[in-house]
Amino acid sequence: MLWSINTYKCGNMEYNPLQLFGRHLVTLRKAHGWSQERLALESGLGRSYIGGIERGQRNIALVNICILASTLDVAPAEMLNFFDKE
Amino acid sequence: MLWSINTYKCGNMEYNPLQLFGRHLVTLRKAHGWSQERLALESGLGRSYIGGIERGQRNIALVNICILASTLDVAPAEMLNFFDKE
Repeated sequence: MLWSINTYKCGNMEYNPLQLFGRHLVTLRKAHGWSQERLALESGLGRSYIGGIERGQRNIALVNICILASTLDVAPAEMLNFFDKE
Repeated sequence: MLWSINTYKCGNMEYNPLQLFGRHLVTLRKAHGWSQERLALESGLGRSYIGGIERGQRNIALVNICILASTLDVAPAEMLNFFDKE
């Protein structure tokens, strides 16, 4: 199974999880009408860290994914539900 | 928002994401009839790393979550779909 550094296969589709997650997080955040600062405040995560995630530049780990899910009041699975949006 | 080191809130429920993810990964792996060795071979991830994830001892990051999803042929969101099982 050969992955290029950025893209992975899901079924017959190749995708960049960091980018898709970042875009999806922006959607979820804006659905709350929140700025990155507000999400940082509510979650306890750093504002620049959140900015890096949203730009698809950070490989966020499970615990922080769940902190964001709890903060945005969605199930953890919804954080990775970024395919329907494509 | 006060998180203890291991448990987080999702709605009114507190949970340990590492443990729940690990148990859910065991379920998904066994649904394939695979051993940890086979999942390691198929995914390219280390066998001991997978063991640590399944024991709830490792804070797996997004890219590896998506590699496991692709390997187990499920959508990334399914990897975090660990609440229904409780």
